[in-house]
Amino acid sequence: MMRVVHYGLGPIGAGIARLIAGRPDLQIVGAIDVDPDKVGRDVGLVIGLPNELGIQVSADAPGVLRATRPDVVILATGSELARVASQIRQAIAVGASVVSTCEELSYPFDTHPELAQELDRLARGQGVVVLGTGVNPGFAMDTLPLALTAVSQRVDAVRVRRRQDAARRRLPLQRKIGAGLAPAEFAEQARDGRVGHVGLLQSVQAIAHGLGWRLDRIEQEITPVLAAVETRTDALVIPAGHVLGVRQTARGVVGGRVLIALELEISIGAEDPRDQVVIEGLPRIDVVVNEGTHGDLATAAIVVNVMNHLRHVAPGLRIMADLPLVHYRSA
Amino acid sequence: MMRVVHYGLGPIGAGIARLIAGRPDLQIVGAIDVDPDKVGRDVGLVIGLPNELGIQVSADAPGVLRATRPDVVILATGSELARVASQIRQAIAVGASVVSTCEELSYPFDTHPELAQELDRLARGQGVVVLGTGVNPGFAMDTLPLALTAVSQRVDAVRVRRRQDAARRRLPLQRKIGAGLAPAEFAEQARDGRVGHVGLLQSVQAIAHGLGWRLDRIEQEITPVLAAVETRTDALVIPAGHVLGVRQTARGVVGGRVLIALELEISIGAEDPRDQVVIEGLPRIDVVVNEGTHGDLATAAIVVNVMNHLRHVAPGLRIMADLPLVHYRSA
Repeated sequence: MMRVVHYGLGPIGAGIARLIAGRPDLQIVGAIDVDPDKVGRDVGLVIGLPNELGIQVSADAPGVLRATRPDVVILATGSELARVASQIRQAIAVGASVVSTCEELSYPFDTHPELAQELDRLARGQGVVVLGTGVNPGFAMDTLPLALTAVSQRVDAVRVRRRQDAARRRLPLQRKIGAGLAPAEFAEQARDGRVGHVGLLQSVQAIAHGLGWRLDRIEQEITPVLAAVETRTDALVIPAGHVLGVRQTARGVVGGRVLIALELEISIGAEDPRDQVVIEGLPRIDVVVNEGTHGDLATAAIVVNVMNHLRHVAPGLRIMADLPLVHYRSA
Repeated sequence: MMRVVHYGLGPIGAGIARLIAGRPDLQIVGAIDVDPDKVGRDVGLVIGLPNELGIQVSADAPGVLRATRPDVVILATGSELARVASQIRQAIAVGASVVSTCEELSYPFDTHPELAQELDRLARGQGVVVLGTGVNPGFAMDTLPLALTAVSQRVDAVRVRRRQDAARRRLPLQRKIGAGLAPAEFAEQARDGRVGHVGLLQSVQAIAHGLGWRLDRIEQEITPVLAAVETRTDALVIPAGHVLGVRQTARGVVGGRVLIALELEISIGAEDPRDQVVIEGLPRIDVVVNEGTHGDLATAAIVVNVMNHLRHVAPGLRIMADLPLVHYRSA
């Protein structure tokens, strides 16, 4: 039985907690969130279960961690490593491993080398594991493409396209892709990093690292997908000419050649949603995930599915490629 | 630099050796084969390279192993574990890890529990790893489906269909699938295990083990694919009504329900060759490998690609799911 503290109960954190609440091999022993609407309430009700779990959500992270001494902290509080690093340190300090959906933690060695080194040192010191995972980054555009190269004699280039229809995704995600904005607003918010997916850069870096490639540079681009006609969702009315979503690319370049090309489109009404991975090389590999890997369900799933491995991997700051094969296992 | 002895230089073993000969991080230090046409000749010429490698093929396995003390023996001599076990013991005895394409070694715990236990004990004793791998079993119908469940909250059933066109495969493989036989000959040879793919059973067992499922039974079936019209390949003329290849199924059953269904067709002229994996559950996952994972190229590739991990996995008899993510890495 692994004892778990949930740190962050937004839509993703709550989805993970619901899954864990149903597992006989995992036990929720604490829950942390700063949202005043959640603090003091029972975690079961906060995450949308019909029943209470007998544990109140608290804003006092150090207090909860000291009182519960969990085996694992599930951290779902933000995308930026610099902003969640102190939370990771708190968890390590009480001897807990950390599994986080923080996108920048999935491959932090290039963008945050000093922080990565510090967290690795702290985790080793306590004999715990720190790991960033999720569907993307963490699976669809990095771990899965790497896994497919298991049967490659030679890899010349990796191309991944992921196209998702955001129509039935949660409103915060629709906001995050700029849905409903005018093009000028989108451009401004994209400059500030307020719209767009975080993690494409890390996916390119994780693939390059896995394949043993040293990239000269990584080129990134973000552009809006615009509505040809007025488009409605449950929550939004998007006028013609306004933004349906985002198209982002990240390209790893060596000697002027694009060796890694990732393209992600998330937009309201995107047609034929799918993930496609092409490995150019010997043999050529062309794989399609019909409908694409489901975002929210998949992220909660992979967080739970990595937990089997925490006790069997060397302590420290780890990445997905360090783990034995990650797969579902019934409890 | 890892020092490698090749044990078995049939088509698969030779393909692996060609790949290894081109890797700067791997060195062929010995080659074993009993074929009188190969013994005494330079391994480079035997495996089809334009150049000699300065190493003669020998039939004296213990002699080669004692003289070379390799880090790894690549064993490609047979499908049946009982027949290759003594070769594995020879390799372990000189302190070498073993990577083998022996299909039954990919998941030996159910079909050969005592032999598996013995090999595990011997390997631990010498601090080496013994691993069975390949494209199938080893990847297309077991490791890949398991890897796709990384994003599963719940798995209800696993279905894999692999359909390969044998027209351009090597003649031994065409013989192995019964191509050209009359239906009655096929039935007789299938009964004796002389035609048909070995490993579907192991793939079912590996999936069940990974998912934590206890199967009541595994049902297997083998039927011929018959030619509607006379069909020609480079080497064969197959009359109408004779055998183009094989269709095999293996089904893992629990309580009367089929939870794992694997179907493999390998036949001359099979249309729309592809691998398809469907994971029924939450979410539903539907993945297609267009053209399918290439058999011979892929097996050689995965043997080389697992070798990076041999030093980072606990000694003993291991299976693919025990390894950190297997992927291509440039040398």
